[in-house]
Amino acid sequence: MAWQAPPAAGGAARRAMLGSMTSSATSDGTRSLGPADFAAPMDDRYFEDYHPGATYEYGHVLVTEQDIIDFARKFDPQPIHTDPAYAVTGPFGGLIASGWHSAGIMMRLIAGHYLSRVASLASPGVDELRWPSPLRPGDSVRARLTIVEARPSRSKPDRGIVRSECRLLTRDDRVVLQFVAINLVSLRDPAA
Amino acid sequence: MAWQAPPAAGGAARRAMLGSMTSSATSDGTRSLGPADFAAPMDDRYFEDYHPGATYEYGHVLVTEQDIIDFARKFDPQPIHTDPAYAVTGPFGGLIASGWHSAGIMMRLIAGHYLSRVASLASPGVDELRWPSPLRPGDSVRARLTIVEARPSRSKPDRGIVRSECRLLTRDDRVVLQFVAINLVSLRDPAA
Repeated sequence: MAWQAPPAAGGAARRAMLGSMTSSATSDGTRSLGPADFAAPMDDRYFEDYHPGATYEYGHVLVTEQDIIDFARKFDPQPIHTDPAYAVTGPFGGLIASGWHSAGIMMRLIAGHYLSRVASLASPGVDELRWPSPLRPGDSVRARLTIVEARPSRSKPDRGIVRSECRLLTRDDRVVLQFVAINLVSLRDPAA
Repeated sequence: MAWQAPPAAGGAARRAMLGSMTSSATSDGTRSLGPADFAAPMDDRYFEDYHPGATYEYGHVLVTEQDIIDFARKFDPQPIHTDPAYAVTGPFGGLIASGWHSAGIMMRLIAGHYLSRVASLASPGVDELRWPSPLRPGDSVRARLTIVEARPSRSKPDRGIVRSECRLLTRDDRVVLQFVAINLVSLRDPAA
C-alpha cells in the first residue's frame, strides 16, 4: 500500500484539507480529509471527546495488485485474491482484495487518526461487518467514521463505551467495508 | 507463523487425528483435528455438503512475537501490538496480537480447509465478531467451525447461504476470536 497525499482540490474542500493536513498529518502520510478533526489530539483524547453524531474522514490509501496478492498469500490464499489470470474468469471479473485485507487497511487508518494514544483500553469486537462491493487493484480508499453512541460504563466508572459506524470508501464512494466498532476509552475526569 | 503438526496424543484423540491427517492434510501443513471431515473434499464440495450441526476443527497455528509485530506494523501500529517493552506496562501485561491478525489466521484456516474450491461464491460479511481473550506470543491456535444454518437462496436458485460459528481457540481452550460467517455456496444440483 502507498499512504497517499490527497489530490489537489479547490474551495472549502481544499481549505478543510489544508487545515487537517496541519493538524493531523501522521508519519504514514495519511491525512484527515474531514472539515474538522477532534478538538483534542490523539495524545490528549479521552472518552469525553467522542461526541455522538460527529463524523471524521481519513485517507486515502492506494491499494496495488501486489498489496492484494501479498496479503492473500499469507492470510486468504483463494485464487480470486492471489491469481489475476484465474480471477478474470471468476464472479468479479478480476482480482479482488481479501475482505480481511480491507479490514486491516481500515484498522491502520483508525489507529493512525481516530483512537486515543493515551486512553484507548481495548475493543471487545465489531458488529455487522459487511463487504458491500469489491476492493480492486488501483482503488484508493478512505475511512469515514461516525460516532453513534458514547456512554459511561455501568460497571467501571473510569471508562466509557464508544460505538462508531466505520466505512471504507473508494473515490467514487463505493463502500468496500463497513462495521460498527466498539471501543473502551478512559474518562479524562472520572470524578466529574 | 509456523503451520504446525499437532502434538502426539493418545486414545480416541490420536485415532481421530490420524484419521483426519490422512484425509485432510494440506500443503500448508495444517490438519483437521476433528473426528471426521466433510464427506466431500474441497475440490468437490457444494452447498449440499454443509449440514447444520456439523463441527470441524483445523490447526494448530503457532503465533510468534515477530508475527505479531510484523502484522501490527503494517495494519495496527498501536504499541500494545508492536512494542513488547511498552506492552508489559499496559492493561494486558504484555504484547498481544491485533484482533485483525487473529481474523487473518482464522481466514487462513477457513480458506485452507473449510471453503469449497469449486463452489464458494462470496461472503457478504460476518456478524458478532468478538475478541474474548488476548492472543499472545507463543500461543498455538486452532479453528473450530460449527454450521448453524444452511438454506437455499430465495432469489437465486443456483446457490445457498451457509452460516457458521467460527472460533479461534488456544491449546487451553481460551477463545481469542469468534464470529458468525456468512457464505454463498453453489448447489451441486440446482434442479434436485
